[in-house]
Amino acid sequence: MSVSTVAAAPSVCAPLPVLGRDVTVPLVTGGEVTYAALDYAASAPALQRVWDDVAAYAPYYGSVHRGAGYLSQLSTDLFENARRTVAEFLDCRDGDQVVFTRSTTDSLNLLAAALPAGCQVFVFETEHHAALLPWRDARVTYLDAPRSPRQAVETLERALADRAAHGPALVCVTGASNVTGELWPVRELAAAAHAHGARIVLDAAQLAPHHPVSVKDLDVDWVAFSGHKLYAPFGSGVLAGRADWLREAEPYLAGGGASRKVTRCTDGGVDVEWHDSAARHEAGSPNVIGAYALASACKALTETGFDTLVAREQYLVAKVREGLADVPQVRFLSLFGDDAPRVGVLSFVVEGWNSSHFAAALSAEYGIGVRDGLFCAHPLVRTLLGSDPQTQGECGAPEAAPGEKSLNAIRVSFGAGTPDEHVERFVRAVKELVTDGARWNYRTEDGRCVPDTSA
Amino acid sequence: MSVSTVAAAPSVCAPLPVLGRDVTVPLVTGGEVTYAALDYAASAPALQRVWDDVAAYAPYYGSVHRGAGYLSQLSTDLFENARRTVAEFLDCRDGDQVVFTRSTTDSLNLLAAALPAGCQVFVFETEHHAALLPWRDARVTYLDAPRSPRQAVETLERALADRAAHGPALVCVTGASNVTGELWPVRELAAAAHAHGARIVLDAAQLAPHHPVSVKDLDVDWVAFSGHKLYAPFGSGVLAGRADWLREAEPYLAGGGASRKVTRCTDGGVDVEWHDSAARHEAGSPNVIGAYALASACKALTETGFDTLVAREQYLVAKVREGLADVPQVRFLSLFGDDAPRVGVLSFVVEGWNSSHFAAALSAEYGIGVRDGLFCAHPLVRTLLGSDPQTQGECGAPEAAPGEKSLNAIRVSFGAGTPDEHVERFVRAVKELVTDGARWNYRTEDGRCVPDTSA
Repeated sequence: MSVSTVAAAPSVCAPLPVLGRDVTVPLVTGGEVTYAALDYAASAPALQRVWDDVAAYAPYYGSVHRGAGYLSQLSTDLFENARRTVAEFLDCRDGDQVVFTRSTTDSLNLLAAALPAGCQVFVFETEHHAALLPWRDARVTYLDAPRSPRQAVETLERALADRAAHGPALVCVTGASNVTGELWPVRELAAAAHAHGARIVLDAAQLAPHHPVSVKDLDVDWVAFSGHKLYAPFGSGVLAGRADWLREAEPYLAGGGASRKVTRCTDGGVDVEWHDSAARHEAGSPNVIGAYALASACKALTETGFDTLVAREQYLVAKVREGLADVPQVRFLSLFGDDAPRVGVLSFVVEGWNSSHFAAALSAEYGIGVRDGLFCAHPLVRTLLGSDPQTQGECGAPEAAPGEKSLNAIRVSFGAGTPDEHVERFVRAVKELVTDGARWNYRTEDGRCVPDTSA
Repeated sequence: MSVSTVAAAPSVCAPLPVLGRDVTVPLVTGGEVTYAALDYAASAPALQRVWDDVAAYAPYYGSVHRGAGYLSQLSTDLFENARRTVAEFLDCRDGDQVVFTRSTTDSLNLLAAALPAGCQVFVFETEHHAALLPWRDARVTYLDAPRSPRQAVETLERALADRAAHGPALVCVTGASNVTGELWPVRELAAAAHAHGARIVLDAAQLAPHHPVSVKDLDVDWVAFSGHKLYAPFGSGVLAGRADWLREAEPYLAGGGASRKVTRCTDGGVDVEWHDSAARHEAGSPNVIGAYALASACKALTETGFDTLVAREQYLVAKVREGLADVPQVRFLSLFGDDAPRVGVLSFVVEGWNSSHFAAALSAEYGIGVRDGLFCAHPLVRTLLGSDPQTQGECGAPEAAPGEKSLNAIRVSFGAGTPDEHVERFVRAVKELVTDGARWNYRTEDGRCVPDTSA
């Protein structure tokens, strides 16, 4: 073996330690392997540091806000510090509010409930349902799937130019697709929105764990993201951005914490004065541990440095792409082209395979956890699959029989905690399955695809 | 000392181990003491067992629902098992739904969003704001504070008899007051509601941690409670009960998980088929750790047995009541009389003391964490204090100067994790403060009452 064929050690950092990195799972073929969590786009494991921070804090947990005790005051400070940490993580403007929610879905529903009367919403059909569906009280314009970042900007500009010249408008756009991982031209879309008097909210659920997000630099009005995709799966999310619409809106939830003063009126009703701060939309006891965990993750990523994280992730993306480049049965899904910049999220179909069976085989025979389905982005996945929107692709529906055209896709996704071995095992597994077939049969039981052990 | 004066060892169980039981806090008078968490009514410490369960599970955390990997399926099972555990804990009827929310506040806002058109809501003015305020789209009848359980039932019956004979109606009532700890006649109120064709939701935030709650036995239509008051402070809550209104309502949050099928329509819009199950109202990635923690707490309380827990708590309530019976400056707040049955929640004012200063002294000089304020039940506390509703008692407002009549009250609350010593220290501290005064001066800074160390 000549020296030149020995691959140079890649100049990328080691994966960040995450919980579960040593967990082994049984294989249907016998034995156990360490679990390869390759469904980060749905939910990422907790960073070890996040867990350590939570574990260190948990004994000091106390009731926040008006609690007079030492731990109550400590917990209140910790909760409010978490808000500041998130504002720094997002590079927010002075005066921006950081509202703790339960998830990106919750954040976007909150913003939807805070839209001014008559607000028109513009959203690409390619969005995750969390960004596609919350605008129930608004007039919504759904924009067709663009086939390039430039076309995305042009499509938006054309739609905004067509709208009535006045009245509030909001554009909602993802930073990175949860299906293809492709990066969207957020700064350009924000500029287009603002040029036409509209505002813009960035769905950063898939972007924030992988790339730095600067509210100032991107010039977006709001950002939403989730703790569970950012290595802090403790039930918290964030909506951050301009205070005005939030301050003027009815409180998202009605209850304690959001209400400053409640008075029984002489007419028998009650009169409520609501807070103007983020508390306005955070009624109920806040999820302090969730907010603290999320802030801990923000700090950990910032301290590692996104340059380092991006370099490592691109190295893993290249491993997948290059590793499967010579497997023609694998077709990656893409809006902007196979070489478009993306985060560590890739969806694909395998010729001759039912996607659910393929995903089940990856799990049962290789200990690899991916996802199959439509990824809560039905219109996008159907567009990418070229399937019939009227009859196909119901999420959770029984799968087609093996050999039939797959109605769903397979998604592999990874991030800061993913070791090389997981991605290498995935590439090897895909090749083996394509070449040799699965060693077991799979069937669908209670909506879940499992090895058929009855034979 | 004769044998008869030695108190028999009480036949009550030991406190359940909770996180933070060994945490020490500094005293302004020097030294440290173990922290006495006596604000359980706001948020209780995690049971050690809950924490151990969470810590054991955390490495196995995985994306739920459509994830194909082993840990995804394990986590999905764990999440759905948590739902069944809660249903058993609440003794739900067949067909009842258990929806995971973030808190009682969230649960009641969800139910408010699910009311049928034209629904009339009946709620006592004595409720927590979480139960008082969510009914924003309904016609709400606020009922005056009753002075006995019987009067509560009579008041409700009269109001229901006066309503238009047809159309949907909902009664919302607490099981145990978050201010006085007093038990409400839930079964009788449910019977009254049903006799008049109305439904009833039980706010069990303060009841469920202290007493068994049987949906069947109480014959309530829904129950709401929170994990953070039930020794599982991980950001989860529950709404459980009849499926019909929930199934017919618009999804609480719009997004993935709640949507079964989303299709781009030929007219440019999108068509959505929503789930009919609990998932309908749980859009977004669920808080699996929160739901698991809550279910773990339900199991722990059930296995300990509520007979045992109630006996211990009543023993602690008696310690407080009897310990302060000879302190005339302490006035307990009560709607139904000082001897009315209650959980371990008691509010009081101290003659000649500003409540915030008193609570601050308990913390700074004794390491005791109580709460001062209006406890998110402004109309009730003002009624109990006899204060002027128009000018007094703004939550978080600057306190009156020492010596003036207090606008707020002090609340002490405890539960399954409270050792005798905390309650004994509290009784001793109150007596010493009343007799000898505080050893420091206190002032309000950034809305928080702190020792004045500037002198």
